[in-house]
Amino acid sequence: MEYFAGIDIGGTNVKIGCFDQDINLVEKRSIPTDSHMGPENVVERVAEEFKNLLEANNISQSDLAGVGIGTPGPADYRKGILFSLANLPKFKDTPLRNLFSKALGCGGIMENDANVACWGEFSEGIGKDVNDMIFFTLGTGVGGGIIVEGELVDGSGGNGAELGHVILYPGGRACNCGQKGCVEAYASASSTAARAGDLLKEGKESTLQTIYKSDGEVTCKDVFDHAQAGDELALGVVEGTAEALALVSITMLHVTEPRQIVFTGGMIAAGDFLLDKIKHHFNENIWNLKEETVQLCFATLGEDTGIIGAASLAKHAKDNNRLA
Amino acid sequence: MEYFAGIDIGGTNVKIGCFDQDINLVEKRSIPTDSHMGPENVVERVAEEFKNLLEANNISQSDLAGVGIGTPGPADYRKGILFSLANLPKFKDTPLRNLFSKALGCGGIMENDANVACWGEFSEGIGKDVNDMIFFTLGTGVGGGIIVEGELVDGSGGNGAELGHVILYPGGRACNCGQKGCVEAYASASSTAARAGDLLKEGKESTLQTIYKSDGEVTCKDVFDHAQAGDELALGVVEGTAEALALVSITMLHVTEPRQIVFTGGMIAAGDFLLDKIKHHFNENIWNLKEETVQLCFATLGEDTGIIGAASLAKHAKDNNRLA
Repeated sequence: MEYFAGIDIGGTNVKIGCFDQDINLVEKRSIPTDSHMGPENVVERVAEEFKNLLEANNISQSDLAGVGIGTPGPADYRKGILFSLANLPKFKDTPLRNLFSKALGCGGIMENDANVACWGEFSEGIGKDVNDMIFFTLGTGVGGGIIVEGELVDGSGGNGAELGHVILYPGGRACNCGQKGCVEAYASASSTAARAGDLLKEGKESTLQTIYKSDGEVTCKDVFDHAQAGDELALGVVEGTAEALALVSITMLHVTEPRQIVFTGGMIAAGDFLLDKIKHHFNENIWNLKEETVQLCFATLGEDTGIIGAASLAKHAKDNNRLA
Repeated sequence: MEYFAGIDIGGTNVKIGCFDQDINLVEKRSIPTDSHMGPENVVERVAEEFKNLLEANNISQSDLAGVGIGTPGPADYRKGILFSLANLPKFKDTPLRNLFSKALGCGGIMENDANVACWGEFSEGIGKDVNDMIFFTLGTGVGGGIIVEGELVDGSGGNGAELGHVILYPGGRACNCGQKGCVEAYASASSTAARAGDLLKEGKESTLQTIYKSDGEVTCKDVFDHAQAGDELALGVVEGTAEALALVSITMLHVTEPRQIVFTGGMIAAGDFLLDKIKHHFNENIWNLKEETVQLCFATLGEDTGIIGAASLAKHAKDNNRLA
């Protein structure tokens, strides 16, 4: 039996998982990133923890066939080298893939975390029955993933599929990336909360005002909770999020003609309350040149998507002689 | 020596070309589409003309290794069957690819005309040295093409890469497709002329008013000519076209991270006057997360792109056992 390692590097924690060759989870663990200690230290601690995990499960390190690593972008993913990252400043120019390959003694592949999650949902989750998928992660930012004919399309240097930075409203809200009117500036969890905050600051009537006045801000969950309870201001904000997601879905339908458009992130806990609104705006705005049958849906893998996707990507890369 | 047929089906004319296996033109011809005669008649006349062309060049029909056919969309390109088309109404549900394969006695491939042109520029034109390209045709509409890692990405059913229908200004100008705010509603030659017409109708001052008052409309070429002569209204309209093209270029950079973004169509006759404006708006609006080195440029193949691309696509399909 061969095994694959899935590593999901975040600003706060590193999640690691060991999977068999059918991508069944053997065991998963999580350790603090402590990125201030520097990348070599992080790699060393992660590798140590992973070796302990292997030992605890009576798996020989020589049976480890590959390691997949998901990281925030941008990076030179072809070479497995991180650029300067806002929440991992000490990792600038780190050859992270090779450090992990060497530490674990197997070939590796490094990808953007949203692409990794996309590959996880495609290969092991809701996308199992399709060949062409578009994927959105709705968190602090908006990440994207693209599957065309069963393969990840991640751009010529691995920095494509940045669907959060598709320009949706030219001249609109400022995005952290320096552009204006990006999808991310409207449809991320943070932007949804921020758009509500802007209206609350103006003194607009809303059941959210109590929270806003006490905390100086509201969360995305607050907005959804109050929208579901019928608050008009919160409802309007959620409609804006749903409309932005519908419009970028239409744009991406015209780009790669996916069979499935999948959303993930904390926001999808709202269930059909959100999904029905996205579908409504999609149907209101889609062209009439031909009938579209694309499925708009939510992801199913949950919090382990990152490690599942990373391990599955490593297996896929090994099968296609792409591990480095 | 093997030969390939390139067929470019338009509403007015059908262009045909015979190419050798290095995609050097042997001879090209053009015949009226006369689509009112029905598709079988069109195929029959085109095949007849092509056989005459082969004979005139002492090429045996048995040396014809494949035929590529470019058509307006949408269609079921995998099966080579046209849907109902505005400018080819009698062609509804025509199995065009199989009709041509049978008539010419060789395997065929059918693609959207913009994808065919994109493949032509990629394989034989300005894109020869890159592996990842985005392509825009600026005519009555705006067509698109996508090359990822040396292959055409045309969507799961061949109706992707409809980059003219990326939504750029939500709630904006009505597009012929039924959507609002599409790239095509701003950046096509027709829309550029129409945007100028809207301002002229309002009585705005412009050197274009003489033409507008006499003809009731202006052409895209009029707009560019007067913009280059310094007319403020015309300049503003051209800036709008350039900005729309820059914004959709940024969006597509974030989708597939191309090395080259290529524009074609009558409008590119304006040369650097247009290209510099597109580059200006691109640089004004692009993110600052990483430096981008994508080349924005104009196509080079000219009026034969359609037949060159179709023949080249047929050769590529043959090389990869994809002819049907």
